[in-house]
Amino acid sequence: MAMSQRATVILATRLIALIATLIAAVVMASSHEKGSIFGAVSYEAKYSDTPAFKYFVIANVVVTIYGFLVLFLPSESQLWRLVLVFDLVLTMLLVSSISAALAIAQVGKKGNSHAGWLPVCNQIPKYCSQTTAALVAGFVGLVVYFLLVCYSIHRDLDPFLVRKN
Amino acid sequence: MAMSQRATVILATRLIALIATLIAAVVMASSHEKGSIFGAVSYEAKYSDTPAFKYFVIANVVVTIYGFLVLFLPSESQLWRLVLVFDLVLTMLLVSSISAALAIAQVGKKGNSHAGWLPVCNQIPKYCSQTTAALVAGFVGLVVYFLLVCYSIHRDLDPFLVRKN
Repeated sequence: MAMSQRATVILATRLIALIATLIAAVVMASSHEKGSIFGAVSYEAKYSDTPAFKYFVIANVVVTIYGFLVLFLPSESQLWRLVLVFDLVLTMLLVSSISAALAIAQVGKKGNSHAGWLPVCNQIPKYCSQTTAALVAGFVGLVVYFLLVCYSIHRDLDPFLVRKN
Repeated sequence: MAMSQRATVILATRLIALIATLIAAVVMASSHEKGSIFGAVSYEAKYSDTPAFKYFVIANVVVTIYGFLVLFLPSESQLWRLVLVFDLVLTMLLVSSISAALAIAQVGKKGNSHAGWLPVCNQIPKYCSQTTAALVAGFVGLVVYFLLVCYSIHRDLDPFLVRKN
């Protein structure tokens, strides 16, 4: 593959990651629904009620801003060597935020009878499906960033010894 | 630093990571306490009640086994180039499991009034502190693996252009 073709593929991949993390942040941040507990106490579920979901939004906003800035990095810049390090750190941020949000979403869906935490998704189904959509988008972003890190490592380190030394 | 000195430092670092993840897995897996809800319904809290804690134990066991096996890799082996990739993937596994367990531990400690989930740590304080200890050990393991990945990248890629090209 020619250099320019490769650069186009990487640019397209970074665009997909950017869109995925942007959607994840926006969908999670805009998720809210009015519900009621046992048909009595009414409340409004929103992402900021749950620290893990706030963390998820912050992480995805940070990665989106980074992903946007990287698009404008000239291809001959020496900074590309640093991009691998940033890709790596931000991939870990995504892994962390998705795992935390997923753990809470699981309790929201299934509850935890041992701790006496009841599932809440039957009361606020729209909120739950919006959260799930945000998690899926975040996961797509994570997979794309992981592939970018793998590609960088493959290109610079050749760990599987594909090329002859 | 001479080659052998460097190898000793890396071996010692890997030993610390191995011990940390082993402690994390053992402490979490052995955490249990008999408690009662409102002094009435009695139950036994254990790690396997919570999927996030089970995931934490599994992740730390996997990383411990890997960390043990890597100790026996001869220093001249070609496989060391693959170790960076494994280090990276297992660091992400640690990040993921710690984040998930931390999110649940936070609900256990503070509860989530919006979802109607009550904090449980005042009823089972010993279980909670043991879980916290496991999380701290897991975090130490994670930091050490992250440093190992950073060192490998620094050595092989020199992203900060410390060495002259």
